Amino acid sequence: MDKPLILVTNDDGIVAPGIRALVEVARSLGDVVVVAPDSPQSGKGHAITIHEPLRLKKVAVFQGIDAWECSGTPVDCVKLAKHVVLKDRRIDLCVSGINHGSNASINILYSGTLSAAMEASLEGIRSIGFSLLDFSFDADFEPAKPWIKKIMEHCLNHPFKIGDLLNVNIPKLPLSEIKGLKICRQANAHWVEEFVEGRDPNGQPYYWLSGKFVNEDTGEDSDMWALENGYISIVPSMHDLTDYPAIEPLRLMENA
Amino acid sequence: MDKPLILVTNDDGIVAPGIRALVEVARSLGDVVVVAPDSPQSGKGHAITIHEPLRLKKVAVFQGIDAWECSGTPVDCVKLAKHVVLKDRRIDLCVSGINHGSNASINILYSGTLSAAMEASLEGIRSIGFSLLDFSFDADFEPAKPWIKKIMEHCLNHPFKIGDLLNVNIPKLPLSEIKGLKICRQANAHWVEEFVEGRDPNGQPYYWLSGKFVNEDTGEDSDMWALENGYISIVPSMHDLTDYPAIEPLRLMENA
Repeated sequence: MDKPLILVTNDDGIVAPGIRALVEVARSLGDVVVVAPDSPQSGKGHAITIHEPLRLKKVAVFQGIDAWECSGTPVDCVKLAKHVVLKDRRIDLCVSGINHGSNASINILYSGTLSAAMEASLEGIRSIGFSLLDFSFDADFEPAKPWIKKIMEHCLNHPFKIGDLLNVNIPKLPLSEIKGLKICRQANAHWVEEFVEGRDPNGQPYYWLSGKFVNEDTGEDSDMWALENGYISIVPSMHDLTDYPAIEPLRLMENA
Repeated sequence: MDKPLILVTNDDGIVAPGIRALVEVARSLGDVVVVAPDSPQSGKGHAITIHEPLRLKKVAVFQGIDAWECSGTPVDCVKLAKHVVLKDRRIDLCVSGINHGSNASINILYSGTLSAAMEASLEGIRSIGFSLLDFSFDADFEPAKPWIKKIMEHCLNHPFKIGDLLNVNIPKLPLSEIKGLKICRQANAHWVEEFVEGRDPNGQPYYWLSGKFVNEDTGEDSDMWALENGYISIVPSMHDLTDYPAIEPLRLMENA
C-alpha cells in the first residue's frame, strides 16, 4: 500500500522547533510535504491574503523532506499546498503545529495553527492542530511526540469524517506525568484584555495588546479541565458556526 | 431612559461608504461611537496584532459622531473600543459593516466584519454583522437601511442572549423586491480556489489568490437559499466550535 501523504504546516514559521518535532513524527508514518509561513504568524486567525501576491519558495530546511516557505498566512499556506504544490495528489492528512503555546478553548478562533487545520478541513482534508502549553522557543517537545504519533496513527487507521478537524492540546509535563487522552468540548473561557499604553521615540502614543486568559468553566468534559488535570485534550471542531437552538426564538423577528 | 450606546466598526476601513450608511442608521437609534480600521482589512478573519503596537487616532469623519481610526485589524478595533475608548461605559450593541460583499455561509470565518462582531460577542456585547451582496465601492446601501434599522430596533427592544451574534446578509435588490427576513442556518458551501500565477517586474514568480464560491447546499433553511430567493438572511452564530455529535464516536481514541 502507498504511504499516506501528510501535509505539515504551522503558524510559528518554518524554522520553529515545534514544526520540526511534528515533521519528525509525521515522517515515521507517511510521505511528508511541508508548506509553512516564512515568518511568525501567531494570532493571524483565519486571515487570507487578497490584495497582495504570495511568494512560495522551495527550501532545504528538513533533511530529505520537500518543504516550501510561503509569504502568507497559515491559511494561505494550506490553499497553496492544495492548489499549487500538491495540485495532483490526494492529501490524506494535514497536521498543523506543534504550536508553541495553548490553543485550547476560544483560542481556536485567534490561532493561525488551528485556522490552517480548519482550512484543510474546509478543503475536505482530515486535519489535526497540535499545540503544547509552553510558549517558549526552547519548549521541550519530546514528551509530546509519542502521543502525537499515537493520535496520528489512530486517525490514519480509523478515518474520521471527511472534513473533520481535531484541536489537540498537550500539557507541559514530563512524559511520565501525562495521564492520557480525553475527548472534550471547547471550554467557555475568555480573555481579559489590558492594553499597555506608551509613547514611541517620536512622542506618539501607542497601545500594545496584553491580557490574561480567564476560565470559569469548571466542566470536567471541557478541554481546560483535561489540561489542568494532566490529560491531552482533543476537541472535535467544525466550521458550522450556526447557533441552532437560537433559530426558533429568533423567528419572532421575521414578523417584525 | 438613556439612549443605548452603539459601537460601530467594519473591515473595509473607516472611509468606506458601507460604514457611513451603518452610522446613519445607528445614530437614529442611539448614541454612536465608531472605532474602525484606518485601511481596508477584508479577509483578515479573527486576526489580532500581537507583535506590534497599535495606533488609535480621533478623526472627524462623521459629523457629530465620536470616531477613532485604528491601525489594527477589525478584532483589534473592538478590543480597543471596549478597553480604551469606551473603558467605563456599557456598550449596548455592536454593529459591524455594512460590508461591501457577502459574508454568508463559511465566509463568516474569513470575514473581518463578522470577526469584529464575533469578538464583541466574546466580550459579552450583543453584536450584529451586516453585509450587502455587492462588492463595488459604489454599492447602493439605501434599500438596506430600513431593514437594518428594523433589525437593530428589534434587537435593542428584544434583547437576545448576552454574547449572541447575528450574521445578517442583504441581497442586492431594490427595496420593493426584498421579500423580508429569514432566520437561517449557515449554508454548507465552499470556495474552489485558483491561484493566478505570474512573474513580477523582477522576474520572480508569484501566486495571487482567486477562486469562485460554490454552493451545493440547497436547503431552504440555509442563508444561501434565503439570499437567492430575495430574503435577508439572519444566522445566529456562536464561538463554540465543538462538534458535539463527534465526541462519543471519538472516545475510542482515549483507549488507543
